[in-house]
Amino acid sequence: MTARPRVLIIGGGFAGISAAKALKRAPVDVTVVDRRNHHLFQPLLYQVATAALAPADIAEPIRTVLRKQANAKVVLGSVQSVDAGHKRIQVNDAWLDFDWLIIAAGVRHSYFGHPEWEEHAPGLKTIGDALEIRRRILMAFEKAEWCEDADERQRLMTFVVVGGGATGVEVAGAIADIARLTLAKDFRNIDTTKARVVLVEGGSQVLGVYPAPLPERANTQLSSLGVEIQLNTSVTGVDEQGVQLGEDKRIESATVVWAAGVQGSSVGADAGFERHRNGRIPVNADLSVPGHDHIFVAGDQAVVMGADGTPVPGVAPAAMQMGKHVAAMIIGSLKGKKRTPFRYTDRGQMATIGRARAIAATGPLKLSGFVAWLAWVFIHVLFLITFRNRVVVMLKWAWSWVLFDSSSRLVWETEPSAHEGEQPSS
Amino acid sequence: MTARPRVLIIGGGFAGISAAKALKRAPVDVTVVDRRNHHLFQPLLYQVATAALAPADIAEPIRTVLRKQANAKVVLGSVQSVDAGHKRIQVNDAWLDFDWLIIAAGVRHSYFGHPEWEEHAPGLKTIGDALEIRRRILMAFEKAEWCEDADERQRLMTFVVVGGGATGVEVAGAIADIARLTLAKDFRNIDTTKARVVLVEGGSQVLGVYPAPLPERANTQLSSLGVEIQLNTSVTGVDEQGVQLGEDKRIESATVVWAAGVQGSSVGADAGFERHRNGRIPVNADLSVPGHDHIFVAGDQAVVMGADGTPVPGVAPAAMQMGKHVAAMIIGSLKGKKRTPFRYTDRGQMATIGRARAIAATGPLKLSGFVAWLAWVFIHVLFLITFRNRVVVMLKWAWSWVLFDSSSRLVWETEPSAHEGEQPSS
Repeated sequence: MTARPRVLIIGGGFAGISAAKALKRAPVDVTVVDRRNHHLFQPLLYQVATAALAPADIAEPIRTVLRKQANAKVVLGSVQSVDAGHKRIQVNDAWLDFDWLIIAAGVRHSYFGHPEWEEHAPGLKTIGDALEIRRRILMAFEKAEWCEDADERQRLMTFVVVGGGATGVEVAGAIADIARLTLAKDFRNIDTTKARVVLVEGGSQVLGVYPAPLPERANTQLSSLGVEIQLNTSVTGVDEQGVQLGEDKRIESATVVWAAGVQGSSVGADAGFERHRNGRIPVNADLSVPGHDHIFVAGDQAVVMGADGTPVPGVAPAAMQMGKHVAAMIIGSLKGKKRTPFRYTDRGQMATIGRARAIAATGPLKLSGFVAWLAWVFIHVLFLITFRNRVVVMLKWAWSWVLFDSSSRLVWETEPSAHEGEQPSS
Repeated sequence: MTARPRVLIIGGGFAGISAAKALKRAPVDVTVVDRRNHHLFQPLLYQVATAALAPADIAEPIRTVLRKQANAKVVLGSVQSVDAGHKRIQVNDAWLDFDWLIIAAGVRHSYFGHPEWEEHAPGLKTIGDALEIRRRILMAFEKAEWCEDADERQRLMTFVVVGGGATGVEVAGAIADIARLTLAKDFRNIDTTKARVVLVEGGSQVLGVYPAPLPERANTQLSSLGVEIQLNTSVTGVDEQGVQLGEDKRIESATVVWAAGVQGSSVGADAGFERHRNGRIPVNADLSVPGHDHIFVAGDQAVVMGADGTPVPGVAPAAMQMGKHVAAMIIGSLKGKKRTPFRYTDRGQMATIGRARAIAATGPLKLSGFVAWLAWVFIHVLFLITFRNRVVVMLKWAWSWVLFDSSSRLVWETEPSAHEGEQPSS
């Protein structure tokens, strides 16, 4: 129809959607390719995993997000190949040509060379992951309620979270919370408040990248929720029965959550770009791929340094800023403007710890406890995808805050493999 | 702890939960066994399948439903065996003894001797079923958007619903609605309003068990939504490409939903009870199993005749009434009272047709159109499981009514087998 430049965006996460939206008025045709049909508000994914929110509360079909943007279309499919030389990518066995390419396919979990651990210690990146972790947590309590062997019951009521970053801290706090509050009255044989939640961190503190005194305060708040924190401890094995720590320590646990490391998506791996050992792609200061002026990487998948020489962190605000920067570079290039370097504006960090506590830092301001939690609620609700999501999530939080009840404690199927539908056995 | 009579209830559906609740003040210990952790408000399941509601809106953990009932506990597990002679059942490889047993395990789809059709034409009984049907419907549009072959695109945009009972009518109307309204603005290459929805019914009218003039009105309302109704038509084959009708007709379709027949759960099949050809269990007038005073069957799994000599229908109100009757029989027996026959009170039938139309009959009153729909909304919201569900569902309905937007258009994974978690391929 038109001969307008074609901008192809791989990935409908924060970076991809921000880039697409920033191109709304540009004289280009935008196509967003994703293998899932929804944009996900990942900062709240741990609340789906711990049964506080439902998937639909934090996700929105990409088509809906871009519904009113006339120059954008959406393709649901897996990217099979990136052919930088011919400026085209392969999706669903067909080739799509581009004039500009934005690779924003994100990261997935890294098991440090031990992919066999994944089965026993799922990570938390997709709605599928969150529902699987939810299933494991709730089924562990169900099995403990039924179990007559004291050791096995103890193992079922032990939850290990590997990795003391924001996700690990939030998951550990939330598990401790549902065990103490939400589930306590539901069981007859077990005392869910006796559940053991262990947070394992390789470094010397949790939330190690946050400024002092937040790591220490997070430590205190987690401890007050009953979370055991094991610092300077590396995981050396994960199996069906539990976790091996260092040389000779072991925790018997039926539910292990992995929040310890990420590696770049394999999208673009065949394009001949330089890649770091963890699979992420180093980019020029303007976020273009070295040697490829028309190809950019944005979001978690990009390795880029901030003004202070430290790497830009893999957080939603950074991804959104990168997406907007790449869109500006494309718009500028169409007008013959010179490229400018990406500058990350760090507005601060925050993490919730359990039901009504959090820690937050923005510039010189360091908050913790209830005030930080209020700030956390305000900011997260504000940035939720749509107004409907904001209303629903606020209502659900208010509800669970008042009633100690959480709304999404469902397990579709009790076995992981039974998702394909009804089994004919009963 | 106590020597109180043990009442074992198999199934946490309408019949099982009603029986458990009716035993709240009785001097018995109640155990509800279910292989899923939630009670499901099945009359609204089609709204989950058609993306209007989320699973958590119409389901509630059984533990939560019975949380405040001190004499009730819950076991999550599959019933492997019912041993009527020894008064025990086998669950999770262990034996549970009972003094009274209530079998309320419900029904599942029946493919009239063609179990191989199920793969291509899933039925709608569980949340897993609903999410799978939702995935198929939404993925069909996604694939059509991408498809360049006109015939295949037509096949992808053809939806066949088999069975013209309440579920079939509601599913067909809801698919027509989302195609015409909700999805219309999301796609660029296809016109979703051109989707073809075919309702296939073996009898001479849809909603054949409803009193006149409702079947005819349902017919008119469905037609006005663009649903094609094929009456007196039997399905003779279902395969990957479509549906075979009668001797020589065929509809090419990528999405077939089965709403045509049910058979009793296999729970209790090894107990030596008489069973009908469709697997359901005929019971005495008091709902006990012939020859087993202490064993009852309630809900859809029971075959029981109403006062007028016609079978009691497999609907939620009948199941709830049966559950209460069985509880009353047990309480009465403990007091030495005589058994009484079950009497079904038919309060009427209703079914929605699309967004704001319905048909309803109660006694001499026959409603259709918007008034019937308001009655339908009122009754369904009133009977939802908890107050929270009621508030959330009302808000969602109001929202989608005003904005033509539906909140749950998510597909976790685009392939049916990918539920186990993140694939390492990208």
